[in-house]
Amino acid sequence: MFFEGSEKKVEIQWQKESLFSLPESFWREMVQASGAQILSSLQNRKLHAYLLSESSLFVWDDRLTMITCGQTQLINAIQFFVETQGRDFISSLIYERKNEYFPYFQKTHFFEDLSVLQRLIPGRALQFGQSDDHHLFLFHTQSPDFHPRMDDRTLEVLMYGLKPEVACLFSQPSTKEDIRQKLKPILESFELDDYFFDPSGYSLNALRGHEYLTIHVTPQEESPYISFECNALNHEDNSYWVRLLIQVFEPQSYDVIIFDPEQEVFLNAEPGYTQKDSVFDELKGAQYKVSYRHFFKANHEVQKAKEVRREFYE
Amino acid sequence: MFFEGSEKKVEIQWQKESLFSLPESFWREMVQASGAQILSSLQNRKLHAYLLSESSLFVWDDRLTMITCGQTQLINAIQFFVETQGRDFISSLIYERKNEYFPYFQKTHFFEDLSVLQRLIPGRALQFGQSDDHHLFLFHTQSPDFHPRMDDRTLEVLMYGLKPEVACLFSQPSTKEDIRQKLKPILESFELDDYFFDPSGYSLNALRGHEYLTIHVTPQEESPYISFECNALNHEDNSYWVRLLIQVFEPQSYDVIIFDPEQEVFLNAEPGYTQKDSVFDELKGAQYKVSYRHFFKANHEVQKAKEVRREFYE
Repeated sequence: MFFEGSEKKVEIQWQKESLFSLPESFWREMVQASGAQILSSLQNRKLHAYLLSESSLFVWDDRLTMITCGQTQLINAIQFFVETQGRDFISSLIYERKNEYFPYFQKTHFFEDLSVLQRLIPGRALQFGQSDDHHLFLFHTQSPDFHPRMDDRTLEVLMYGLKPEVACLFSQPSTKEDIRQKLKPILESFELDDYFFDPSGYSLNALRGHEYLTIHVTPQEESPYISFECNALNHEDNSYWVRLLIQVFEPQSYDVIIFDPEQEVFLNAEPGYTQKDSVFDELKGAQYKVSYRHFFKANHEVQKAKEVRREFYE
Repeated sequence: MFFEGSEKKVEIQWQKESLFSLPESFWREMVQASGAQILSSLQNRKLHAYLLSESSLFVWDDRLTMITCGQTQLINAIQFFVETQGRDFISSLIYERKNEYFPYFQKTHFFEDLSVLQRLIPGRALQFGQSDDHHLFLFHTQSPDFHPRMDDRTLEVLMYGLKPEVACLFSQPSTKEDIRQKLKPILESFELDDYFFDPSGYSLNALRGHEYLTIHVTPQEESPYISFECNALNHEDNSYWVRLLIQVFEPQSYDVIIFDPEQEVFLNAEPGYTQKDSVFDELKGAQYKVSYRHFFKANHEVQKAKEVRREFYE
């Protein structure tokens, strides 16, 4: 079975009464609107984290981040939120959509999502990266009065192409414990909620106060993909997480996306990798600076072609 | 206006009465079935070449090659041919489809085409290259009795990302004469038929006996693309055409696909380029060997994000 790991993501900042005052049933409905389900949840005083059948939802007092993959329609969850809660108290809405492995199996494409967004809450859309290569579509609202906090930084590391031993770790007969053991260097000091899909695939939410970290793994041969995202960026070194992840997963290529309230974030290629693309831009009116980079490891061996599996056309 | 330059291609080898005996109206209907039109034609005793509103059709006594781009459905033209002429005299049918800039704007995807092909004339499907990067889908029939001639070699060079001066050359106020002047080193000794689209875009068929060469240019900023294909491969040096093309067009990246009846064809990266991917396989039962390579020129400068144009979502 093929599976689309590439994600859509929305981040909404909210300036009315606390999002914690919304009942559990609201979040269940919002998640269902996208076509996903809540599998489990984990919470502390500052942050509620929901593990979904397709990725994750994080809710803070004044903010939410929802990430979905597969054939979900995150745009419908956004529409549900805006139509039930109103758009007047949204101080910032940022919607991202990564290029997909199987764009033709998606229910909508980014431009369709964009036309819905522009009706709901007008904004501006950008593309980071080339259309014939890895790229990220991004929509953002523009509110001159909105200013992110100085520590409001987010890191996304999207890894493509997995070595057989890494793919195997995330498929049966591996267990959750095997996986947690492998991820140990990454997960120290976080509280965990994770799910191992049958027969393969893995999702994890991890919390530490208001900080989150989330990992989603699609080990399937047709679309090998691991995504990592977190806002725990208080390290001196911008490369801290990237280095750790690349050492653990050794992907064929990876993209790094960093949101920072102040500046462009520089990153060197990890050893053995080459930078192929680098884009930086300011989200004018959303006050974030976004750095996008695509790195890859050259494969000098000649490969065989892959036979197209019957399930794709029968 | 955005335009999808990436092509679909079919090559049919035919062992009944000459394809030249089919009337002009047959080819017009076949081209129309795909959604394209014949713009002009050029012919000699061995080869008839049609320039199409979306790419080209070449007809020999015992063979045809049809290439279409944009939003055409080449699969419908194949269906028209097989249903009107019968499948019993087809000794080989090879269908290729390159990854697209805008896959979600296509009327079908490769797997849908494949399911039509498998009903019309069963065969085998392969993928050259990674799904998250440049790649080629290829379908071929399997007939153990079929053996290509030893000189039956085809070269495709697909170039992505154009420098502004190259893109300008293929847009008004340039003229056909400006373009032919630039292409002179490539076109020596060929007879030409070319078309300059308004306001931009260029197509060319060139003939020399049974040999053809065809170039199609999409200079549009959203999907800059030049394709080159020919069967004029009697040079000592496999790199002859590639070197010439890269010198003339200096693309950001390029793919090379070579069909050879005998062997894998090795190619070095042109100066300034890096090989990113290399795939070789045999079309078992079609007796061709296919070498696929993807090269790119690293861009060390940080780019700005591209604003998404309204025509994409309004």
